[in-house]
Amino acid sequence: MEITRLSPTVRRGLVVVITGYGKGKTTAALGIAVRACGHNMSVSIIQFMKGDLYAGEWDGVKKMGCQIELIPTGKGFCGIQGNPYPFKEHRSNAQEAIQLAHQKMASGQIDILILDEINNALHLHLVDLEQVLEIIQHKPPLMHLVLTGRDAHPQVIELADTVSEIKEVKHAYRKEIEPQPGIDY
Amino acid sequence: MEITRLSPTVRRGLVVVITGYGKGKTTAALGIAVRACGHNMSVSIIQFMKGDLYAGEWDGVKKMGCQIELIPTGKGFCGIQGNPYPFKEHRSNAQEAIQLAHQKMASGQIDILILDEINNALHLHLVDLEQVLEIIQHKPPLMHLVLTGRDAHPQVIELADTVSEIKEVKHAYRKEIEPQPGIDY
Repeated sequence: MEITRLSPTVRRGLVVVITGYGKGKTTAALGIAVRACGHNMSVSIIQFMKGDLYAGEWDGVKKMGCQIELIPTGKGFCGIQGNPYPFKEHRSNAQEAIQLAHQKMASGQIDILILDEINNALHLHLVDLEQVLEIIQHKPPLMHLVLTGRDAHPQVIELADTVSEIKEVKHAYRKEIEPQPGIDY
Repeated sequence: MEITRLSPTVRRGLVVVITGYGKGKTTAALGIAVRACGHNMSVSIIQFMKGDLYAGEWDGVKKMGCQIELIPTGKGFCGIQGNPYPFKEHRSNAQEAIQLAHQKMASGQIDILILDEINNALHLHLVDLEQVLEIIQHKPPLMHLVLTGRDAHPQVIELADTVSEIKEVKHAYRKEIEPQPGIDY
């Protein structure tokens, strides 16, 4: 069997939004990094709000023989039960993440920029709509931009090329199954 | 900031289904492999129907310094326009993939078994419902099993712990944007 290799006549940098309340938003973005790795593309993943809870992908991406970096910039989900950090601190971290995103875009070295949980950060007012729209509208034309997180803003969806909404049909935690390594973190 | 490391008091092998018509099913499964890699878990990915069209993840997983294997077993999507292979051949390939899944489970070496596109293969009658239910019901208790593909069967959903349905809100190809490396393949 012959294997077909696609090659677009026109290269485009896409804007991809992965939203919804179901499981799989962050892993869908991480999977894009695996795919990109096969094409020798460089990927920068900036995680909003994440940073206080160990996740396997932090070490996973380091073990990939690819140009992939993952930078957690936060202190956990703002406002959820048990999170001890004040809104101001969460917002300050998210604002730094926005600046980091601009630096990555300006470097010209990144083929895919993944802003993990930015939709959620916008919904929680840790970043402003104008800031997210500015990133989308001023990204390098050939750079893919992936924005994940629940509650994606309608104007972000409007500007995106591809938008997936992940619906929760079932989740193990509702059966009181604890989070399991490899799947949940 | 202190980083919390979760550790479940009870380890469970979960059954995860990722279905729906939106983009992100396969990448969500690949992202689980990245996460698992950080936990030094071994992952086997068997792709049903895929094999005729190069995808970045084929090389991406090889570059990961982890115990991850990806085995495409098919000849493209059965019945779609342009696919030259007869049903019988697609079914034969899918049946071999089922046997391979059993071998992987019997080896006792696999922490996560990902059966990519198996839901779709079942919907297209390349495998039988009983075969999929048998895999779910007889998997090693601590092994996670991930089943992707559109049109997941209700009985498969019934047996699963976590089920996500990815809905297509928008897709770039509807704007006649060609598939782009890193994102689409």
